[in-house]
Amino acid sequence: MKLTSEQHAQFERDGYLFFPGLFSSEETRTLTAAVPELYGRREAYNVREKGKDAVRTNFAAHLYSEPFARLARHPRMVEPVQDLLGEQLYMHQFKINGKQAFDGDVWQWHQDYGTWRADDQMPEARAMNVAIFLDEVNEFNGPLMFIPGSHKLGVLDAAHDTSTTSYPLWVINNQTIHKLVDRGGIVAPKGPAGSMILFHGCLVHASTSNLSPWNRVSVYLSLCAVSNHIRQFKRPDYIAHRDFTPIDAWEDDAVIRAVNAKVAAE
Amino acid sequence: MKLTSEQHAQFERDGYLFFPGLFSSEETRTLTAAVPELYGRREAYNVREKGKDAVRTNFAAHLYSEPFARLARHPRMVEPVQDLLGEQLYMHQFKINGKQAFDGDVWQWHQDYGTWRADDQMPEARAMNVAIFLDEVNEFNGPLMFIPGSHKLGVLDAAHDTSTTSYPLWVINNQTIHKLVDRGGIVAPKGPAGSMILFHGCLVHASTSNLSPWNRVSVYLSLCAVSNHIRQFKRPDYIAHRDFTPIDAWEDDAVIRAVNAKVAAE
Repeated sequence: MKLTSEQHAQFERDGYLFFPGLFSSEETRTLTAAVPELYGRREAYNVREKGKDAVRTNFAAHLYSEPFARLARHPRMVEPVQDLLGEQLYMHQFKINGKQAFDGDVWQWHQDYGTWRADDQMPEARAMNVAIFLDEVNEFNGPLMFIPGSHKLGVLDAAHDTSTTSYPLWVINNQTIHKLVDRGGIVAPKGPAGSMILFHGCLVHASTSNLSPWNRVSVYLSLCAVSNHIRQFKRPDYIAHRDFTPIDAWEDDAVIRAVNAKVAAE
Repeated sequence: MKLTSEQHAQFERDGYLFFPGLFSSEETRTLTAAVPELYGRREAYNVREKGKDAVRTNFAAHLYSEPFARLARHPRMVEPVQDLLGEQLYMHQFKINGKQAFDGDVWQWHQDYGTWRADDQMPEARAMNVAIFLDEVNEFNGPLMFIPGSHKLGVLDAAHDTSTTSYPLWVINNQTIHKLVDRGGIVAPKGPAGSMILFHGCLVHASTSNLSPWNRVSVYLSLCAVSNHIRQFKRPDYIAHRDFTPIDAWEDDAVIRAVNAKVAAE
């Protein structure tokens, strides 16, 4: 899966690329089916919503769940990112964000690279965020919002917010968001389960709470250029990985083949 | 402003009617300009967002602000409601809800008539909610969400939530919302400042937080059929009014004429 020159230009300009319905419903079903058991585990890698039992974010499932391990090396995800960063990649972070029906809380305006630099000493913003929808995303279940073009300003001033939600975040101040939105507006890509978004580590993003009866589970992978690996190991290794082995992409039907093999074996 | 038979049928079926851009920008500007001074007052009738200074809801402005007093008798609002309820009306409640940029918090799923019955002993659901947008409402600034047809079920079981936000609300449980949405889906009318929505006192509605840099100030009026006036005076009278005098609608250009008169006098 090679990106076109138009897609390269679009990424450069807007800071993201959207691929609606990139994975089939058969592929996402395998992943979605694995989520409840993972969320049910009482482990530090499951961060729950403030005052609630619903999981806000699950870390590092690719290290202990077979379908997610396969997704982590999927060529439809790895190849375009490799194309954009021009280098082999390793997995810096792997999350399954719940944004559960009724319980999913806000994510305030932030840039991911701000955290990677401050907490992990990642040298440059040469790491890509990948969002893969495990549920349909619509206007009611708290879609990801981007400010197009905001990645061009590099790392913006941010304050460490440890109180609003259950997960601490380096949050950008309101005045800056006002200016950025005046320039670039806001977009919220929506689409069926299996859609994918690639977005720049400096792209400013947020999402509202989910008051709808529809879950909005998404996988967020952060793929870092190998030479740009983190230098500081302050955060737990299930949050900021320390294994810089380059990812070998699998063949395209990996997710489906795994299911079929399992069905055949049963 | 007479409603058509199609509009009557639509209201019957969906529980709401939407009138995009019903008031001109000249008319809404007069109202919007009056809001900051009202919100600035340190009075009990200004309920602020939890832990914040931003106003969540202002009560009874039609009793102490001239432009809002005029709006409260505007024929473009009063006449269709009178048409639907088939009787003269009085003002049961008058709110200017802030849903301020960055600070506007959620309103959970609820029915207004549930509160009017429980707290105010309003005999029947013969009171209409009217929302008038003072700002553009878009997908990012926390639009009002409705479950079409949910008004037909009458008053649903609800629990008194006094902790989630700064304003106590009789909130409908998640299971019920799930069933209602399976039947009727969710809609969120969006449009320019000056748009109006009429919605049934039993229509289930909610709105998410406003993370955008755009205010979403709306006036919410509740017009009750005079014969259906409340029987219990438990809540402060700036919240549930005790003056059941029928509203006399003004002429259509009332808001504008007031401004022009003021300009001429200066």
